[in-house]
Amino acid sequence: MVDVVTTDALVEGVHFRREWSSANDIGHKALAVNLSDLAAMGATPRAILLSLTLPPDLSLEHFDALLDGVLAMATVSKAPLVGGNIARSTGGLHVEITAIGAVRPRRVMRRSGARPGDRLFVTGRLGAAAVGLAALTAGVDITSDALASCVAAHRRPSPRLRTGIVVANNRSASACMDLSDGLADAIQQVCEASGCGADVDTSTVPVHEAATLDQALTGGEDYELLFAVPRRRTRLFHAAIKQAGEVPVTEIGACTKGAIPDLGQGFRHF
Amino acid sequence: MVDVVTTDALVEGVHFRREWSSANDIGHKALAVNLSDLAAMGATPRAILLSLTLPPDLSLEHFDALLDGVLAMATVSKAPLVGGNIARSTGGLHVEITAIGAVRPRRVMRRSGARPGDRLFVTGRLGAAAVGLAALTAGVDITSDALASCVAAHRRPSPRLRTGIVVANNRSASACMDLSDGLADAIQQVCEASGCGADVDTSTVPVHEAATLDQALTGGEDYELLFAVPRRRTRLFHAAIKQAGEVPVTEIGACTKGAIPDLGQGFRHF
Repeated sequence: MVDVVTTDALVEGVHFRREWSSANDIGHKALAVNLSDLAAMGATPRAILLSLTLPPDLSLEHFDALLDGVLAMATVSKAPLVGGNIARSTGGLHVEITAIGAVRPRRVMRRSGARPGDRLFVTGRLGAAAVGLAALTAGVDITSDALASCVAAHRRPSPRLRTGIVVANNRSASACMDLSDGLADAIQQVCEASGCGADVDTSTVPVHEAATLDQALTGGEDYELLFAVPRRRTRLFHAAIKQAGEVPVTEIGACTKGAIPDLGQGFRHF
Repeated sequence: MVDVVTTDALVEGVHFRREWSSANDIGHKALAVNLSDLAAMGATPRAILLSLTLPPDLSLEHFDALLDGVLAMATVSKAPLVGGNIARSTGGLHVEITAIGAVRPRRVMRRSGARPGDRLFVTGRLGAAAVGLAALTAGVDITSDALASCVAAHRRPSPRLRTGIVVANNRSASACMDLSDGLADAIQQVCEASGCGADVDTSTVPVHEAATLDQALTGGEDYELLFAVPRRRTRLFHAAIKQAGEVPVTEIGACTKGAIPDLGQGFRHF
């Protein structure tokens, strides 16, 4: 087994607002986005570190709720909190998590392994988190179940840990990446890292019932997984997805020797 | 070998000011404070992750200088940068580093191993970083060499990596901790973790020529090491210190069955 390690931060005013997400939600999401990175590598979580930079106005009650959000998810994913840091913030709340995972060396999934001819698959239905964020931004009443599930997707994403681990274990995927910055961005990153192009049939992209195609392509924060799968391993791949039993996959295109498709700009960090 | 992992953040306005430290200094220090934690465990650095939260006004030139500061120290300490994250800040600059180190299981130094009768030793001379910070805060001209060395101690601390590793290897110390929050705080933490008290003769504390005893005890940011050493291993300990050849040590007291001494309050995070 080798250790893989990943780090990701949630920054108040950039990734969340305390008016829109509870402290427990923020803790949950801070860990979820890191576990999603481990999932994309096919790694089993081993341990996490939590580094908090706290504004003076954060109450003890909110601090406890934030920690509960992290710990509940840590318990479910069997990744004990082994260390961390607390500092004072002069700005907003800043939640940083480092997650350590283990995976057998030949089973690590990378972005760089896709080859022309490999098929592209994506898990779940896309765009929900973007719809949820848009609804919160617009201040609309969350009356329908569909909208409520979108807000939940923004607040408490579910990383596809089991799917990533099972696919890595049967070695059916040549590349994998999570969709934290959107499907369009993930396809671009995998193609660039692998030195290939892709043909994507956008009419096949699994769009959430409340979302538009553009939200599904570029909305970001979906924390689903994009896989490249060699043609001869497609059956093996479907067996892994079935075994994981977590979420369906949809074929959306294939890697080519041609150009990298421009499907839009993902989440802009700056 | 086991992995140990530590994380520490430098927050603008709390741990540094961009007027007082160059971007290169900030990068250097962000890694140094983490390596100091590894040193206190006796661990050899293996890899680091860098997570930056960047304010929009940070120029590309400063970004490069910050990265250079991290990478120069990473190269010297043979800890390659293996990953990280970049996010946008709505407040100040936030530099978070996670450092991974390796150490043989029976050689890990902890805070909790001190026993009554163990002698207490501290490396280097204390208080310089506090003097440097006070000089920058007061805006005094840095004319003397002594003051310049204090400002350098605040800006570019030197973690005692070699000393920590060599002492851990010959297993002469029962406990160790770095002085990031001051000597008074370190003694308190080691005593609490070990369930013992201590007698400290403050007249023996090695005070930097430009500092007061209070700055040496509570100023913080010295990144020297406090060791507890069983009486029968004192000779072995001194041999390790000599072998490391990094910095002298001074005996300042001993662990007891009595009370934890109150030598003052260390750096207040809140």
